[in-house]
Amino acid sequence: MPKLYPDADSAAPAGQAAFEALLGTPFALDLPGVTGQAGEELSPYTQEPLGITYPQADPDALFAAAKAAMPGWAAADIDTRLMLLMEGLDRLYRDHLFTLVHAVMHTAGQSYNMAYAGSGVNALDRGIEALVYAEQAMRAVTPQAHWARRFGRDEISLEKTYRLMPRGVAVCFTCASFPTWNAWPSMLASLATGNAVIVKPHPASVLPMAITVRVFRDLLAEQGFDPNLVTLCLDTLDAPLGKVLIKHPDCAIVDFTGSARFGQWVEANAHPAIAFTETSGCNTVVLAGAEDLDAAIRSLATTMCMFSAQMCTSPQNVYLPPQIDTPEGPVPRDEVAARLAEAIARLTEDPRRAGMILATVQGAGTLDLIARMRDEGRARGKLLLDSRPYPHPDFPGARTATPLLVQLGKDARDLYAEERFGPIGFVIDCDSAEDALEQATTDAAQKGGITGFLYARDDAFIERAEHAYARAGAQLTINLTGAMPLNFAAAYSDYHVTGLNGAGNAALTTLAFVASRFAVTQSRRPVRSVHG
Amino acid sequence: MPKLYPDADSAAPAGQAAFEALLGTPFALDLPGVTGQAGEELSPYTQEPLGITYPQADPDALFAAAKAAMPGWAAADIDTRLMLLMEGLDRLYRDHLFTLVHAVMHTAGQSYNMAYAGSGVNALDRGIEALVYAEQAMRAVTPQAHWARRFGRDEISLEKTYRLMPRGVAVCFTCASFPTWNAWPSMLASLATGNAVIVKPHPASVLPMAITVRVFRDLLAEQGFDPNLVTLCLDTLDAPLGKVLIKHPDCAIVDFTGSARFGQWVEANAHPAIAFTETSGCNTVVLAGAEDLDAAIRSLATTMCMFSAQMCTSPQNVYLPPQIDTPEGPVPRDEVAARLAEAIARLTEDPRRAGMILATVQGAGTLDLIARMRDEGRARGKLLLDSRPYPHPDFPGARTATPLLVQLGKDARDLYAEERFGPIGFVIDCDSAEDALEQATTDAAQKGGITGFLYARDDAFIERAEHAYARAGAQLTINLTGAMPLNFAAAYSDYHVTGLNGAGNAALTTLAFVASRFAVTQSRRPVRSVHG
Repeated sequence: MPKLYPDADSAAPAGQAAFEALLGTPFALDLPGVTGQAGEELSPYTQEPLGITYPQADPDALFAAAKAAMPGWAAADIDTRLMLLMEGLDRLYRDHLFTLVHAVMHTAGQSYNMAYAGSGVNALDRGIEALVYAEQAMRAVTPQAHWARRFGRDEISLEKTYRLMPRGVAVCFTCASFPTWNAWPSMLASLATGNAVIVKPHPASVLPMAITVRVFRDLLAEQGFDPNLVTLCLDTLDAPLGKVLIKHPDCAIVDFTGSARFGQWVEANAHPAIAFTETSGCNTVVLAGAEDLDAAIRSLATTMCMFSAQMCTSPQNVYLPPQIDTPEGPVPRDEVAARLAEAIARLTEDPRRAGMILATVQGAGTLDLIARMRDEGRARGKLLLDSRPYPHPDFPGARTATPLLVQLGKDARDLYAEERFGPIGFVIDCDSAEDALEQATTDAAQKGGITGFLYARDDAFIERAEHAYARAGAQLTINLTGAMPLNFAAAYSDYHVTGLNGAGNAALTTLAFVASRFAVTQSRRPVRSVHG
Repeated sequence: MPKLYPDADSAAPAGQAAFEALLGTPFALDLPGVTGQAGEELSPYTQEPLGITYPQADPDALFAAAKAAMPGWAAADIDTRLMLLMEGLDRLYRDHLFTLVHAVMHTAGQSYNMAYAGSGVNALDRGIEALVYAEQAMRAVTPQAHWARRFGRDEISLEKTYRLMPRGVAVCFTCASFPTWNAWPSMLASLATGNAVIVKPHPASVLPMAITVRVFRDLLAEQGFDPNLVTLCLDTLDAPLGKVLIKHPDCAIVDFTGSARFGQWVEANAHPAIAFTETSGCNTVVLAGAEDLDAAIRSLATTMCMFSAQMCTSPQNVYLPPQIDTPEGPVPRDEVAARLAEAIARLTEDPRRAGMILATVQGAGTLDLIARMRDEGRARGKLLLDSRPYPHPDFPGARTATPLLVQLGKDARDLYAEERFGPIGFVIDCDSAEDALEQATTDAAQKGGITGFLYARDDAFIERAEHAYARAGAQLTINLTGAMPLNFAAAYSDYHVTGLNGAGNAALTTLAFVASRFAVTQSRRPVRSVHG
């Protein structure tokens, strides 16, 4: 039970009960332009339908309502908007956190702990960060100025007024496996700067976003604003609406989290809307040496198992030189590869521990991918560790898979140099530590990569690696061991995607993430005399 | 003679002599990958070739050289880069301003005064502003942080290092009629944030940019940086290279000033490069009433004549209600239209005064457009004022044209609701003041517009107009009379394009103009013990 929560003892069971009460019922959400009801969520823990249906609304009606709602919101002062949005985050925290935990578990398939920490409090923190950056960018514009200059014999004195104008209606796409973490900062960045937001959840993970939308709609209405500033556009797997929303003439901002393929389409086709994306890539590990090789392998194994590697920051490719440098002397690559496989096997052999770390596999397609990668791996390299379902201790029907670990040569780049979403890892044989660094950073730069991980003992090598990863645009974690998951991104000090490679451009916590969501317009007129 | 310049008495003739010495010679500029020489500039003042040739360089070689030059520049600290760039602006001012004045006159066709003020000191000021915004955006990122958190029983302490990484090679397109004003802020925004810049001047106005490029290359080399951080890519009207540069795999940033047609292509096709654009639109005037109608008409007439309306901020469309409200009573629209035509005619009848205000017509195509608009205007509306060449007092061979003014009904929107580049104005008959405002702001919103101008006596109407123009995304000047040109954009207090309509998105002086030109990458590692 999380210790910091005010009244977790009562809130946790109440949240679970609230979640259970939602099952099998229509979700109460008042939206404009409703044309029907739909809902096709399956719990990865039970592989049964949740049975919740949501209103489906006509995209034209959503855009029209969002546009109509904006002027009043944009006219509110910055403090009013920021305070209301902070209150929204606070309500998600105080009143809905444990409902959201179960909603995330039974759609995204995360463990209880990850749904609480990663999809809950950490995601709320990232939302607060977005408000801070939005405020910085907006406060950089003075509301007014007096200006005077002589033109010939004529002294011209003008009063200049500056208005922050929202860019327009934003569409926020959320992904199946980690909906809130990207959605909340994106929604808040758009809303803080005066825009309206249409949330377009992945059909597999609607509930966390439906709860979010309802909280903000209720709050907006209560505070005298138009609730249509925040709406939900539900589509289905058979009838996707993503392209319709992006190509809608009133779409001004797109926030997208999802597949690299659709993300690339979004970036290339969003214009005239601006696009903030977080897609995927192959996150890389260079293991050249370690002061404590066991500890390094333990950290790597844990992080590669975490939520079955279904995080955008999960390491996938481990680049190994022929020998790994340790204080006890060089350790052959194959031994290190075998020890990594063994560490993963050990972590996942106890079902209770596996349930905590691996949780479930969000989508059934991932199991097919594992099967394909197993075959390819056997044919072209060596199977270090096979994947198998493990019996979840609490949910016998859970969709589960332990990690697959395949060892490959550099020639199998077509296999490993792209994201293979799910519990799939590759060990890649490299010629040397330098070669491992070169391969890893080239793959990140060319194929996209959000994170990089380095273990090395040579300070000069570490420094070269820092520069190489910076150029490749992946955030680097060096020689980290211990209980912190290697890919943990701390609010208030860790940046997200850099925009320097194909994994997207949504840093979440930069001025670039907020500054183009609004425009500065001005009017100027001669200073009016007080006697006039 | 400008009074503020330190030694204008000697600098002005020296600058002119330096310009004249360049005529008919190859321009000395050392570039990578030179494949030949070209130059096809004609002076609008003489309609004779300048006879200057410039090195033509292979785009691949320019990108390769720019990429190779970047790491050293990006590694320099922010202060070093900013100080060097300030020195570059200072050298343009101290050592080259009067050469640039003549270079701008004899390529863009501006008057001496506008070349000095608008393309000289005001453009330098806008360059300084870009440095200020770049500094703000970069300083918002801390270079390092210490971070600690408990994970279970494990206290994790990390040192986190943040690096500002340039986005990549920028291409800066400059336009024929006003090259420096957009180019300098764009170049400096890219350079300050660590990028390299390839300048792609319009083939008709190369010299001002060639001088700029040479100044920065010399300064960079002198200070130990690679001069290929700033290069020139010359193309010709017959063999344009614009699309080649934008679609080059190493193109990361595009700054574009030019036609709406190509600008739209740039915005839609620049991806994965980011694009900053300033294209065109129909700048609108609503004349509903005036305290001093003569003064308002005089200001309008002057601004519509200024540089033959070849500025991106020149008013083009004047929307008139049936009656214009004045303290002396309502004045019929046709009388106001006639008085505007008369004021323009009066301003341009004396060749010396016309030379100061109208200057020349940059491109021969503008004369064809005037002829076509004259015919269309006669057929579909009323010719209020015909255009004619005027004899320039100093340059008998100058390409000149006095303004054409056509009165049209709202049904001729296909004619007036787009930019008609050059000395072409429209008076548009509207049903009422409200209708005039509605038409003007709709045209700005839908067809693009950078500036708007309003004359009105009713405060409530003015307030509605401020909101309507803010929503349309055009910068509004209200009830301004006197010696200041209505479209004068003051450095340090006037924003440029808003991004809210089709006239582009390059505000020049916002965080959005600089913040995405660099990325934040980070590395983090356990805090090293001082005893370790």
